[in-house]
Amino acid sequence: MGWNELVTRASSRWMEGTGPHADVVLSSRIRLARNLDNLPFPQRMSEADAAKLLAAAEEGVREINLIGFPSRVELYRLADTTPLDRQVLVDKHLISPLQSREAMARAVAISADESISIMVNEEDHLRIQVLAPGLQLQEAWRVASQVDDALEQRIQYAFDERLGYLTACPTNVGTGLRASVMMHLPALVLTQQAGRLFHNLSQLGLVVRGLYGEGTEAAGHIFQISNQTSLGKAEEEVISNLEAIARTVIDTEEQARRHLHREMRLQIEDRVSRAFGLLSNARVITSEEAMRLLSDVRLGIALGVLPPIDYRKLNELMVAMQPAFLQRTEGRELNPLERDVKRAALIRSHLAS
Amino acid sequence: MGWNELVTRASSRWMEGTGPHADVVLSSRIRLARNLDNLPFPQRMSEADAAKLLAAAEEGVREINLIGFPSRVELYRLADTTPLDRQVLVDKHLISPLQSREAMARAVAISADESISIMVNEEDHLRIQVLAPGLQLQEAWRVASQVDDALEQRIQYAFDERLGYLTACPTNVGTGLRASVMMHLPALVLTQQAGRLFHNLSQLGLVVRGLYGEGTEAAGHIFQISNQTSLGKAEEEVISNLEAIARTVIDTEEQARRHLHREMRLQIEDRVSRAFGLLSNARVITSEEAMRLLSDVRLGIALGVLPPIDYRKLNELMVAMQPAFLQRTEGRELNPLERDVKRAALIRSHLAS
Repeated sequence: MGWNELVTRASSRWMEGTGPHADVVLSSRIRLARNLDNLPFPQRMSEADAAKLLAAAEEGVREINLIGFPSRVELYRLADTTPLDRQVLVDKHLISPLQSREAMARAVAISADESISIMVNEEDHLRIQVLAPGLQLQEAWRVASQVDDALEQRIQYAFDERLGYLTACPTNVGTGLRASVMMHLPALVLTQQAGRLFHNLSQLGLVVRGLYGEGTEAAGHIFQISNQTSLGKAEEEVISNLEAIARTVIDTEEQARRHLHREMRLQIEDRVSRAFGLLSNARVITSEEAMRLLSDVRLGIALGVLPPIDYRKLNELMVAMQPAFLQRTEGRELNPLERDVKRAALIRSHLAS
Repeated sequence: MGWNELVTRASSRWMEGTGPHADVVLSSRIRLARNLDNLPFPQRMSEADAAKLLAAAEEGVREINLIGFPSRVELYRLADTTPLDRQVLVDKHLISPLQSREAMARAVAISADESISIMVNEEDHLRIQVLAPGLQLQEAWRVASQVDDALEQRIQYAFDERLGYLTACPTNVGTGLRASVMMHLPALVLTQQAGRLFHNLSQLGLVVRGLYGEGTEAAGHIFQISNQTSLGKAEEEVISNLEAIARTVIDTEEQARRHLHREMRLQIEDRVSRAFGLLSNARVITSEEAMRLLSDVRLGIALGVLPPIDYRKLNELMVAMQPAFLQRTEGRELNPLERDVKRAALIRSHLAS
């Protein structure tokens, strides 16, 4: 897939809106932090080291493509790309905000279906990421392991018998694994149960973040729940632990939705219908308001109050309406008002079709 | 026309949405205060006096029906009616709130097209009212004069050579005429010109009131502009004076609308489109919010931003969504939440059809 398609197409496998528990779980993600044995960590690398890392990554990608995945992986050097293009990849959850900020000597390998992405020279030398729609941590883990194994054919990882994989940040030492689930939890927020739940999750060693990772707000009632440390626990244990907890959160959210619909039927129906009415008619809309209203619409679909709209459409819209994507589609910089106008038009056409 | 039809049908001639300047002027109204020579004013009448007044009114109505109006006038005694039914007539601008509060020995004569109504035993013995859609003061005055003449065939009015018609309140002495125009002035409010304009109008001896007369708020940016006193000026002078001023107000409002659409095009388009989206989708809505949003929709239609909706539909909706009408339609008392739900359903069905 060409770079241009990658940054103008608002679809990724994780946005499909399918998969188990798609009503609550947008996507599941497995991330593995890996470093090369013979190079300093990125923060201390020379230019020559970075060049070596890129070369190694290229070889690794060739190896991955031998596994026989239906979707081909390609490496893109970020040095030649624009900040806007990189921001699009952030919006699609394919690279991190950190990776997008500094492009020099950095790269990302992405599969054609965008389910696999490997950041090169981010916080660690390599960050393997696999995204799957719905609650499919095991499936994502299986793919990530295969990618990891393929890379290891060509690359000598920094590994310590006692500690496990060595990483730039101590929290990742061990398995280098972060498993996370992106969940839509509007009913837990509306019934004011979210705070207590998240507190309980943190007691269990989990982290709750907003839509775009660390330090971001939970726009549209979308939360990422992930494991905090990766030391001292087998991958399978971390993953099945998170999966079990995710199932509990799903149950709690679904109970809260039923409760809302039973106890506050009119108010909820009014709220989600108004959200749909506003999104279908607004001519100017900020990203914050749109996220908030899309959350209500998503809830309305789940409750059967609104006519069914494909979750894929909502997921794609959520990405396509972000500032970077809007500007990339338009082919030029847009001021905030212009973006709000383009966003409103995009939403109207998505919801009308 | 039967009483039942009168209080369940949300249409009157003034709601037709036609007539000159219908974009700004909902309706024109002429009201004549008249009293019988041989009876004390209503506040001091005995029951026997009230019975005489009713009998005289009945005779007068028979005379009116001889004029040859296409629409037959009928007298309804209010003693047998419910407060809810009377409130419906208030919402339709056919009787005053004062007339609705106290039903004993009171009556109202109404023509089948609801353009003529004569309140019997309100503040004065007789209050002749003629309503016409759009700016048609002359037309309404012509009809009111004919009704007045017909009544005078049977009734000896309290009239003083020097003062003119004698009325219960000194402000009505003279011609007993109040001419008024109901105008939708959203752009003057939005551009903050309304306050100064209304101040100027009061300097010219005019009164500006809200939708339902004295002491009511200007719900939905709808204002009634009328003459203040009726002493010392010929009817034709009062009417042509108000008409000239109404034309100035119309021009100012239309200029303000063009200005808004030119200078704040996006914001206005967004505002009226959102209003339409909310009205078409809300499941629970208060009368205040609905009036506000309908005002925006009306503005949107006038500006050509929204697809044309018949003004008649909006006028009828404005009446049909009032608490009394909703309850009359439903055939039972409704609590506020029930009303808000019925109102939302009514609005959705009106806007969808």
